[in-house]
Amino acid sequence: MQNVRTYVEEHKQRFLNELIELLRIPSVSADSAYSQDMLDTAEAVANALRTAGCDTVEICETQGYPIVYGEKRIGEDRPTVLVYGHYDVQPPDPLDLWDSPPFEPVIKTTSLHPDGAIFARGASDDKGQFYMHVKALEYMLRSNSLPCNIKFMIEGEEEVGSKSLSAFVKENHEKLANDIILISDTGMIANEVPSITTGLRGLSYVEVEVTGPNRDLHSGLYGGAVANPINILTKMIASLHDEKNHITIPGFYDKVEELSMEERTEMAKAPFDLEEYKSALSIEAVYGEEGYSTNERNAIRPTLDVNGIWGGYTGEGAKTVIASKAYAKISMRLVPNQDWQEITALFKQHFESIAPAGVQVKVTAHHGGQAYVTPIDHIGYQAASKAYETTFGKAPVPQRGGGSIPIVALFEEELNSKTILMGFGLDSNAIHSPNEHFGIWNYLKGIETIPYFYKYFAELST
Amino acid sequence: MQNVRTYVEEHKQRFLNELIELLRIPSVSADSAYSQDMLDTAEAVANALRTAGCDTVEICETQGYPIVYGEKRIGEDRPTVLVYGHYDVQPPDPLDLWDSPPFEPVIKTTSLHPDGAIFARGASDDKGQFYMHVKALEYMLRSNSLPCNIKFMIEGEEEVGSKSLSAFVKENHEKLANDIILISDTGMIANEVPSITTGLRGLSYVEVEVTGPNRDLHSGLYGGAVANPINILTKMIASLHDEKNHITIPGFYDKVEELSMEERTEMAKAPFDLEEYKSALSIEAVYGEEGYSTNERNAIRPTLDVNGIWGGYTGEGAKTVIASKAYAKISMRLVPNQDWQEITALFKQHFESIAPAGVQVKVTAHHGGQAYVTPIDHIGYQAASKAYETTFGKAPVPQRGGGSIPIVALFEEELNSKTILMGFGLDSNAIHSPNEHFGIWNYLKGIETIPYFYKYFAELST
Repeated sequence: MQNVRTYVEEHKQRFLNELIELLRIPSVSADSAYSQDMLDTAEAVANALRTAGCDTVEICETQGYPIVYGEKRIGEDRPTVLVYGHYDVQPPDPLDLWDSPPFEPVIKTTSLHPDGAIFARGASDDKGQFYMHVKALEYMLRSNSLPCNIKFMIEGEEEVGSKSLSAFVKENHEKLANDIILISDTGMIANEVPSITTGLRGLSYVEVEVTGPNRDLHSGLYGGAVANPINILTKMIASLHDEKNHITIPGFYDKVEELSMEERTEMAKAPFDLEEYKSALSIEAVYGEEGYSTNERNAIRPTLDVNGIWGGYTGEGAKTVIASKAYAKISMRLVPNQDWQEITALFKQHFESIAPAGVQVKVTAHHGGQAYVTPIDHIGYQAASKAYETTFGKAPVPQRGGGSIPIVALFEEELNSKTILMGFGLDSNAIHSPNEHFGIWNYLKGIETIPYFYKYFAELST
Repeated sequence: MQNVRTYVEEHKQRFLNELIELLRIPSVSADSAYSQDMLDTAEAVANALRTAGCDTVEICETQGYPIVYGEKRIGEDRPTVLVYGHYDVQPPDPLDLWDSPPFEPVIKTTSLHPDGAIFARGASDDKGQFYMHVKALEYMLRSNSLPCNIKFMIEGEEEVGSKSLSAFVKENHEKLANDIILISDTGMIANEVPSITTGLRGLSYVEVEVTGPNRDLHSGLYGGAVANPINILTKMIASLHDEKNHITIPGFYDKVEELSMEERTEMAKAPFDLEEYKSALSIEAVYGEEGYSTNERNAIRPTLDVNGIWGGYTGEGAKTVIASKAYAKISMRLVPNQDWQEITALFKQHFESIAPAGVQVKVTAHHGGQAYVTPIDHIGYQAASKAYETTFGKAPVPQRGGGSIPIVALFEEELNSKTILMGFGLDSNAIHSPNEHFGIWNYLKGIETIPYFYKYFAELST
């Protein structure tokens, strides 16, 4: 195993080239214009698993985009690790803010990445991160050091709610049976401060439509006399937070897990520099729920954010129109014990109830998922912690993450397994943003660390 | 003059064909993609004026789109009428709501237009309406009945603020000198209830931009911890109206002309059916400033409407992003005594002042104009009233309009002339909306009525 670093060093250029080829395919699941690219990406992932040494590789058809499944069995008596990842990526818009085209990967150095980083949509989320596992498998097989059975399940709908995966998991308990699930789809605090995500927020994503008059109207002839759907929508959305930035949906906080002062004090020890945070985002002040710190606001507290809004004339110049319709996409991040379906229903009921006479409101649920917590006394966490200690030279910090991987809660429910979130990205990787990137150091460090997880997990399992 | 009806009847098909050709040119001033079409339209208008019999026709270059000027002088002792109109049109979006393409005119009958209406962008606003004046001139010259000197000034930037026209008017006092200005760019109550617009609202049109973080962010990693520009924008816009739908900008109402109860009672006599109004718009209730009727809200009261809003992800599916920027286009309709530049400044000052720490706000003024009132004892109004009485068989109702033709106040200031707003359209013509149309009956009735205005104006002037 001491050879993994050497192996990574020797094959570094090939590892980069292979990932770059995968990043060239624009696998945007949210936009049906890319559906052929999605299928091409699934094919490419299947090939990569075969080449790395999986015995069985299948492209499993679903109602949506296919799930790529692969496995390498070494013995019934060995523990089984299920690796999950996703080959789909977020839409790249707004395109004009990218310094280089999102699907033409380039390597550039930055202050945080003196060894270079790969800039491309999906570099970090999640092609670069799941591909580390494919290359770690290659190493373990070539060095004859794989101590566990391994299963891969790489889906194509993570960015749009993992709808097909839910059905797939429910129908394939036996095929997917495992002792631990391993996912690299999160980040760590810094290259010098490795961390493992022990909590994920849940998610409820909805779209709202407010309809006023049955057609666009001239704002001179009708202005002031009929409900303007855009004005009404802004009023309705604004009312979803009170002056302390608490969310006003009745029942929203009823089941929220409140952390003890002790736990909050413990959390507050994680390294965090508010001035650096503000400066990185070019903001003069942070903003959020009264009574909570920035790290608490984006990890242990639920939120409600508008992710998109549109209506009326948005082109060049001016148009004096009252639009017939206005729209918004709204997502709520949820914390342990909040049920996403219940929250979606509460949102819908409340949003419809606050619509004034003169408009019609439609709320459509997009997707959602439950929050999740990994206990740090679990052997999976301990194996991961030892792996990081070996390759980073220091133990990782357990950290609650603000993001959501809705499928993780489902894995626990359906497969009765815990998930270890070994992410090697950084918050500054601009995932879901223009100029997404993934540090080359991080990519290679991931490939180097993962085999140690297998080693320690196998040892702790016996 | 008794022959005008016969003349119109005989040349009806040609009058329609000529207008249809003019409507085919997509003269959208707000979008620079149409700039060649704008120039083509100016050329077509100039040709139409020459054909109708103007002695002098010029396409006057400006900083923006050209102004088409034409004149027919018959004698220094005769009164001079200046006809104003505009050859530019509103952008046609949203295109998918048009039943036929906006620049491929079609004639269809509707319940309000049993003789048919021309459906096309600009049919009513304002190509169809200014073209009535061109055809009225043709009739008066062919029948040797023109009793006034006549000047035409047809501009190409009305829908984007008449910027070049302001300069043109200021620099051409002598060329444009006149005794009365005639404009057909408004509507009347109904074909059986002719009316003349005696008041116009002013306008202030602004665009706002709210910037939060310097890049789009992942709503899981940053949600709840930084100011989301869209949420902030909705909050800021929502706060511009209080719970009684009064506008909250300090000083906004300071100079508003308050009508006496007597005047309001007089206004309330105009025929208006609230149930029909709601049913035509498919709304269950009207909405607006407390304490005022629907007709007051859209004529004598100032308003603030969002005409467009955008930010974040607005495509298919879901994207969990916190946008870096959010935008809105906002217009305020103003009433007599409110100065549009002062209101624009008040808006800017207030809007910037309500931005919370964590966002930057930019307010850009698009354009504006003052409100205007025509006194009904003016000989221009009386000549128009008699003309309607002759052709409609009943006197027109004087009516305050909710729309704005910002240039009208400027005409009074610069040219020292009053304006008569002889509009022949209907509120239901869907101007600025999909399926804009103009009734054939209205078009022909306009051509028939206008020559009587000249006759009575010449008589009353002596």
